Amino acid sequence: MRLTPAIELEHRCKKLQDQMVLDSLDAVIIVQNADLFYFTGTVQSGNLYVPVSGQPLFMVRKDAGRARMESGLKEVIPFGSMKDIPSILAKYGYPEPKRIGLEFDVLPVNFFERYRAVYPNAAFSDATPLIRKVRMIKSHYEIHLMQDAADQVDRIYKRAREIIRVGMTDLEVAAELEFTARKDGHQGLVRMRGFNSELFYAQIFSGTDSAVPAYADTPLGGMGLNPSFGQSAGLKRIEPHEPVIIDFAGCVDGYLSDQTRVFSVGNLSDRLRRAYDDMLEVQALMMRLAEVGMSWGALYDACLKYAVDMGYAENFMGAKGSQVSFIGHGLGVEIDEYPFIARGFSQMPLEVGMAFAFEPKVVFPGEGAIGIENTFYLSNEGLKRLTHSSDELVILS
Amino acid sequence: MRLTPAIELEHRCKKLQDQMVLDSLDAVIIVQNADLFYFTGTVQSGNLYVPVSGQPLFMVRKDAGRARMESGLKEVIPFGSMKDIPSILAKYGYPEPKRIGLEFDVLPVNFFERYRAVYPNAAFSDATPLIRKVRMIKSHYEIHLMQDAADQVDRIYKRAREIIRVGMTDLEVAAELEFTARKDGHQGLVRMRGFNSELFYAQIFSGTDSAVPAYADTPLGGMGLNPSFGQSAGLKRIEPHEPVIIDFAGCVDGYLSDQTRVFSVGNLSDRLRRAYDDMLEVQALMMRLAEVGMSWGALYDACLKYAVDMGYAENFMGAKGSQVSFIGHGLGVEIDEYPFIARGFSQMPLEVGMAFAFEPKVVFPGEGAIGIENTFYLSNEGLKRLTHSSDELVILS
Repeated sequence: MRLTPAIELEHRCKKLQDQMVLDSLDAVIIVQNADLFYFTGTVQSGNLYVPVSGQPLFMVRKDAGRARMESGLKEVIPFGSMKDIPSILAKYGYPEPKRIGLEFDVLPVNFFERYRAVYPNAAFSDATPLIRKVRMIKSHYEIHLMQDAADQVDRIYKRAREIIRVGMTDLEVAAELEFTARKDGHQGLVRMRGFNSELFYAQIFSGTDSAVPAYADTPLGGMGLNPSFGQSAGLKRIEPHEPVIIDFAGCVDGYLSDQTRVFSVGNLSDRLRRAYDDMLEVQALMMRLAEVGMSWGALYDACLKYAVDMGYAENFMGAKGSQVSFIGHGLGVEIDEYPFIARGFSQMPLEVGMAFAFEPKVVFPGEGAIGIENTFYLSNEGLKRLTHSSDELVILS
Repeated sequence: MRLTPAIELEHRCKKLQDQMVLDSLDAVIIVQNADLFYFTGTVQSGNLYVPVSGQPLFMVRKDAGRARMESGLKEVIPFGSMKDIPSILAKYGYPEPKRIGLEFDVLPVNFFERYRAVYPNAAFSDATPLIRKVRMIKSHYEIHLMQDAADQVDRIYKRAREIIRVGMTDLEVAAELEFTARKDGHQGLVRMRGFNSELFYAQIFSGTDSAVPAYADTPLGGMGLNPSFGQSAGLKRIEPHEPVIIDFAGCVDGYLSDQTRVFSVGNLSDRLRRAYDDMLEVQALMMRLAEVGMSWGALYDACLKYAVDMGYAENFMGAKGSQVSFIGHGLGVEIDEYPFIARGFSQMPLEVGMAFAFEPKVVFPGEGAIGIENTFYLSNEGLKRLTHSSDELVILS
């Protein structure tokens, strides 16, 4: 268990304040768990008040003593009600904010109304783009944690090689690998920011079930166990000569890795093997192209065109009619961070410090899905891979 | 895997429409996963439009084919953009809504702004209290699913008896029981509605660690594995003669059960054993008092007073300074549904069909936590228990 170093929190806060100057914000109030963890080092419940200049103030509802232990911030104080915020801020010498940023992509309407009641004369705007921009550039400390998460996911895939056999259900594979992850210190919970987004460790499915689309904003879907959580592993039994695709999120001390590999008991059809090699080619193209200054959208366009030119227009990144418009996504504390290697985003350049998962995949309805995913990091010396399991298709006997 | 029967969906919609008449709403638009599952039978992503009278219309973004398979609703259609909603509704003959209800407790501000852009002249209000009131009364079909979830949780606790031993970490106990749950068909994901609320299957901890408060709105907290998810099981090793408290949520086909039991290797101190018996007394009092017409708040007050009179003012429902103001909570598709057996709520009466978990617990800092939790259902013949593991303290040798 590592506590986020105070110097990390200082840098993160300073970067947010730089963004706030550009946006003419007087203050940002942060309440969502992932953002709280990033900016305070703890998820103890409260309001983090970040003024455009000066020290942030973390007002904690529950548990304040614990927040003081876990957070490297200087000012961590207990508080009871949102109504007390103005008087607390006045007491600590902060000027009254006129322009306040809030996390509009996650903050429910009812909570926003309470802030409006506390500051009836302030102008509110969305601070999430600013927060996302700060969080998208990883520090060495963060990359170190993500490397640990990449090592963890490698151990999980080693276990997959040992257990997968014909006749097992997809759920049984999932249960075994989740058990492996948990004993390895995985926190269980994987945070996904998007409203209504739900992810439970992994997406694991075999053959035809891996070609079933679902509500999730992911290239693959899966039947799931029931319509209440209609994604990922279901009760299909693994057969010989079909792909078993495992997309698993490692998590160490709150930081994620994301990796996909394909297993099969006995050889796959020529079509699937060729498609797998082709997805490795898409990955190789991305690795050649990804460099500082290239836009996320241009990288997406180039890789999409390459896949389409190889004949995968109706299979790439989802079953026809359910294709998603991204091939990669940033990750760190949440699995859907900036950058998005996605349609649009032509004004957003790759920068040193970005970490993202890249997951070219193809889906053949009635047959299965196949593809590769690794987690990468754009360093001063170019693109580096964090996940390091072999990229080979794993053919079990 | 069960599909929600069409007749269930019809009744649920009709009950919501009855509430809408009382609130003078023309329409409610439902988008959140748990509410979608309840009112459509699926979580495929989309907008469920419920007019104050007539058929609901489920407009599905992803995956529409699958939604048609899983949902018993008559009108399930594909759609692309929120901007198309007015023209789709006009085409289906719905009058333009002037007063629209949305899920303000979960809907992020940015999404609300999109609805305002689509209907610039409509008045919007919070539909969540209406939705909560419909969902709080369980049908026989729902109780049947919750009974299955109660049976599942009993199997998980049988496994706990087999595995708990001195020297194991709390995490190892959690990993084993999660593995048991998963192989039993637990969907993994446990839905909790409150903003920022996070729960991973269970809260499991031993001795001193069970007295550590956390950010969660729960009587117990726990260290967790790291400050990113600072609750539930950590790496403490189980010692003899200390309580191991396990609060586990079963889940079958989307429906929950909630149960807490206490284990120990060797006997507990007199104080802890007496406290356990006293919590059983609080449960017995609740079972005598809970009847149709009694307010949730009055039930809470009576049980709290009983615990305080027994000397637990500083220990009941949390460590001193972190005590929560509820003893019970409704559950079904989410673990924080109506009714709340909580402070306030003096105007909200118990009704036939309500299901709730009741969890009197006491915390002794530096020593541990102890208590009981069962899931109940208020039937026509009075209060019934759904969870059925023995209430005895489990002393292992």
